[in-house]
Amino acid sequence: MQHTVIFKPSGYQGRANHSETILALARRLGVGIEAPCGGVEACGKCKVRIESGDSLSPLTEKEKTFLTDREIENGYRLACCTEILGSTEVFVPKESLTKKQVILETGRERAVPLKPAVKKYYLKLARPTLEDYRDDVSRIIDALYDSGIDRANEIIIDYTVLCALPAVLRQNSWRVMVTVWHDREIVAVQAAQNEGMYGISVDIGTTTIAACLCDLTTGEVLMRNSLMNSQVKYGDDVLSRITYCMNEDDGCRQLHKMIINDINVLVEHLTRAAKIDSENVIEMVLVFNTAMHHIALNINPEYLGCAPFIAAVARPLDIKARELGIGIAKGGYVHCLPIEAGFVGADNVAVLIAQQPYRQDEIQLVIDIGTNGEINLGCKDWLLSTSCATGPALEGAEIKCGMRAAAGAIEKIAINPATLEPIIKIIGQEKGDIKPIGICGSGIIDAVAEMFKARIILRDGRFNKEIQHERVRKSADGRFEYVLVWAAETGTEQDIVVSQKDIRAVQLAKAALYAGAKTLMQKKGVTRLGSVILAGAFGSYMNKENALLLGMFPDCDLDKVTVVGNAAGEGAKLALLNVKMRQEAAEIARRTQFIETAAEADFQTRFYEAMYFPHAKDSFVHMQKMLSGLFKDHSSGGGSL
Amino acid sequence: MQHTVIFKPSGYQGRANHSETILALARRLGVGIEAPCGGVEACGKCKVRIESGDSLSPLTEKEKTFLTDREIENGYRLACCTEILGSTEVFVPKESLTKKQVILETGRERAVPLKPAVKKYYLKLARPTLEDYRDDVSRIIDALYDSGIDRANEIIIDYTVLCALPAVLRQNSWRVMVTVWHDREIVAVQAAQNEGMYGISVDIGTTTIAACLCDLTTGEVLMRNSLMNSQVKYGDDVLSRITYCMNEDDGCRQLHKMIINDINVLVEHLTRAAKIDSENVIEMVLVFNTAMHHIALNINPEYLGCAPFIAAVARPLDIKARELGIGIAKGGYVHCLPIEAGFVGADNVAVLIAQQPYRQDEIQLVIDIGTNGEINLGCKDWLLSTSCATGPALEGAEIKCGMRAAAGAIEKIAINPATLEPIIKIIGQEKGDIKPIGICGSGIIDAVAEMFKARIILRDGRFNKEIQHERVRKSADGRFEYVLVWAAETGTEQDIVVSQKDIRAVQLAKAALYAGAKTLMQKKGVTRLGSVILAGAFGSYMNKENALLLGMFPDCDLDKVTVVGNAAGEGAKLALLNVKMRQEAAEIARRTQFIETAAEADFQTRFYEAMYFPHAKDSFVHMQKMLSGLFKDHSSGGGSL
Repeated sequence: MQHTVIFKPSGYQGRANHSETILALARRLGVGIEAPCGGVEACGKCKVRIESGDSLSPLTEKEKTFLTDREIENGYRLACCTEILGSTEVFVPKESLTKKQVILETGRERAVPLKPAVKKYYLKLARPTLEDYRDDVSRIIDALYDSGIDRANEIIIDYTVLCALPAVLRQNSWRVMVTVWHDREIVAVQAAQNEGMYGISVDIGTTTIAACLCDLTTGEVLMRNSLMNSQVKYGDDVLSRITYCMNEDDGCRQLHKMIINDINVLVEHLTRAAKIDSENVIEMVLVFNTAMHHIALNINPEYLGCAPFIAAVARPLDIKARELGIGIAKGGYVHCLPIEAGFVGADNVAVLIAQQPYRQDEIQLVIDIGTNGEINLGCKDWLLSTSCATGPALEGAEIKCGMRAAAGAIEKIAINPATLEPIIKIIGQEKGDIKPIGICGSGIIDAVAEMFKARIILRDGRFNKEIQHERVRKSADGRFEYVLVWAAETGTEQDIVVSQKDIRAVQLAKAALYAGAKTLMQKKGVTRLGSVILAGAFGSYMNKENALLLGMFPDCDLDKVTVVGNAAGEGAKLALLNVKMRQEAAEIARRTQFIETAAEADFQTRFYEAMYFPHAKDSFVHMQKMLSGLFKDHSSGGGSL
Repeated sequence: MQHTVIFKPSGYQGRANHSETILALARRLGVGIEAPCGGVEACGKCKVRIESGDSLSPLTEKEKTFLTDREIENGYRLACCTEILGSTEVFVPKESLTKKQVILETGRERAVPLKPAVKKYYLKLARPTLEDYRDDVSRIIDALYDSGIDRANEIIIDYTVLCALPAVLRQNSWRVMVTVWHDREIVAVQAAQNEGMYGISVDIGTTTIAACLCDLTTGEVLMRNSLMNSQVKYGDDVLSRITYCMNEDDGCRQLHKMIINDINVLVEHLTRAAKIDSENVIEMVLVFNTAMHHIALNINPEYLGCAPFIAAVARPLDIKARELGIGIAKGGYVHCLPIEAGFVGADNVAVLIAQQPYRQDEIQLVIDIGTNGEINLGCKDWLLSTSCATGPALEGAEIKCGMRAAAGAIEKIAINPATLEPIIKIIGQEKGDIKPIGICGSGIIDAVAEMFKARIILRDGRFNKEIQHERVRKSADGRFEYVLVWAAETGTEQDIVVSQKDIRAVQLAKAALYAGAKTLMQKKGVTRLGSVILAGAFGSYMNKENALLLGMFPDCDLDKVTVVGNAAGEGAKLALLNVKMRQEAAEIARRTQFIETAAEADFQTRFYEAMYFPHAKDSFVHMQKMLSGLFKDHSSGGGSL
């Protein structure tokens, strides 16, 4: 038995199987409903309003914990809990819709000389005769040697290129453009006028896939684009994806297909917008964390998910795009940057080649903030790295009013310490009247830091009970929250608040980063940082002063703290443009010493101390003035959290 | 509109489209009806008898030329000419059925040391720990270096092997059997008990595909098998296949799929019979003529079919079996031996490495007889080769009562010069009572040579008009024929005869071989052959004295003439067992000088002279005694043919 269901306001319509949940149907139809928990009734984000039809499964106890009485009265349900038993009209409120994200695609650019893996050769071949009866391939290879490729190189030809070769040569009257990969494999033979040669670098994040189309004859970036990793449906973090691969038959292949499809969508968008033929995209470079690396390559990541966290393969790989199902040139390769260890991926290697801490005289801390944080410490003589689970709080996820950095998200916040009234900046507000609907990652950091500066919260993260202000109130669960925007001024008609739980999530995230950095510093007896690089797709919106004030990283001169954007994507682009960067990446991946922080005896203590703002014990000389003002009035730390 | 058609005696039944020919339906259903001409109404071999149903297209003029009045009366039609217009029962007579051939699979074996491209390593790997967190691939590669692979070799891993690797390692408790190809690529990782390592060599002929399964750990030949090239349906010779590829949309891919399917059938037969897992077949070596080479690799062979006869690729190739759709180990390779030129294929190169004329002190002629003849002349200092179109007569095709070397075929013939009565030997007769149904290749050579010795035919191939004998008569077309077996004694209830046209076909074939050999000899001023090798899947049944008497090759001491079997298949096997043979093949393919006989000014004259038995002018000192006896009575040559 099937039932007709209409989703509003999109108007998507479909047939639900009897007892299918609203979320399951929405996924089938491609209606984007947020479900950061993966649809396991754990996050309460997938609220929808039933507009007509009453043949639904009864309200569950779980739903009652996530929905207010008012919401229940107004017909709200959780899409993941509600089974469809008859025809229904479902309204998906704005805050439940998957948002098109504002993703910071550019990292701080580093100039490299252009030296791509592929090179095009224009060949004007002698027509064969009864006397010169060389085969087509020999005719081309002889001409390539004449064009300057070292005769010591044995040149082979891609199988698919070979299959098409006789017709291509003759249709083009023996004048062709031949693309050679690493001076050793013919990967394309095209019409002579086909001068374009392009490459795409892709940074596959847990949440976001960002791609960059480059002209490999000029080194120019032609276009960037990004989209949300379709796997987000199956949970926000790496572990939920790994779990899916472990538990579902064929789960890894399903997720693999989703990534490949996302990549192909990006390839199509980029090539269509730039008006180039995807057959002229000759190479692709991929960077990813280890779980995305494995899934993208269709390698089950299950052993990454449990100790001792072993990767299937760490070294760089060159795989034919067609073996992965990626729609670039038939003979083209996908180069995967190497990964370092079970939890330090190719994305971190890409950050390293983009930032090059291993060339610094001073000791540099490079943090790449994502759902997983990667932390690197080093200088020209040595380099350590580790990874920590920061959770998605710093990306605005698993936060009560959190959202991704999309239009309507509060991205910057200041709180007047005297009035406790906030000033907010909303993404997209410069383009016209827009009401806030949630808080994104940089907003959360600002919110917590500003609440700390305004003494709304204490060093240990708890609300200051002495504050009497209408914006500071107790929520239904009896815990404090701060009202950032009143319902009347929001796009959701509900208050946007920062809860005690949200603050805890930020504390856990920043404590993980801090403790990780500290562990690396103590390994090498480092007591002072020369400089700090904060990278991440969310990084460059970040207020570095607030980040330091919260203690996201150990004390450092703010002038030596740099917020860069998507350094991983930048590293991927560098590897696309210059093969020496690939060698550098392979070398760095080998050379970098991976520290498994979980194996460190005093990590728990270090983590606990780092829960305080900015830290229970460590001094922050560069924040002294501000902190001394604060601590004068604050009840000091050291109490229980 | 469709019609039900039943084929007898097989019982195959199917639905014909209105106006579909019987031959087209038979092909769709897999009913093997002989059609050497490819179904273009040119050979008259596809005779069938209509048993019931009269809704058929009317008898064509073409059919009338191929069918006797008696046959027409009895309901015979040509399957290629007859369109189905209603339900029908069709009887396919024995002589029209595609025969399962007796194929000579073994060549003269040459012993080589075992040195295959693949090697298995038993690895007992250290379990990973938090301290030893090497990735799976590095763990294996480190162990391979420890097992003796040169550390200078960069080892890569096949993509499909990588995908399965984590599970395989853990399911087998880190004890695995790793197969490495050329000490540089991991092509299989299996359970430790998986010690078997096999390879298959395949000789893809225009007519026959012969395969040989070898144990690559011992060098032993485990099993051989062969089947008819399914493409035979589309015509007997290379040119008809090339034409099909040129004229049909998707024709090349269709024929390609047929070859791949044939190979997979052989792989399945061999592995099932030998009780081994096809995943343990790690490598395959292919040899073929150039047209089969191209079609097997899905490269359109159209440019091979017209001057200047250029191949797409000549050098040796290593292609992943899975790219070709061949069902051996997922990571395994197919090695294709190099081809020499447009009409001299890898099969000839295989013959050369099996026979090694390039290591002889004396000058050796190596002829590989097939639908195309390959002729090689050389010694340790030089090697020439050429190719000639012999036509299928020497294989028993396009001969009035010709057939392939299958049960019921007359394979040996002697004619008593006094009585002109024949003595015949039939394939399969040792197994019981069997009646002859046709003449195969070796029988045709015997027949013509014996008729010449019995003076039934003259030096120029014409019938001797002075003979008065019931077996020598005029056929319906007014030309002479010799009755080899009377209808009453045959399995077809029709006389088996040798016609004037058959003799002409043999003359054309042998003249092509002779003129080709002579051209090569004159290139190098060679007047006497040191030795002759006659190779071919049909070769070792051949009576070498009769072959010399007919002048299939220039005069040579009969003691120095050797008939070998399928030397091409033998060469393929050698290349499978020893990689040095591949290097030798590549070197020989480069070194051998190809002579395009069509480009030689006096080739026509040479060809014309070679039409005589044994030759118009050349002396045959080793046949002197027999010939002088014959020529005494014969009207001498030199007359018009």
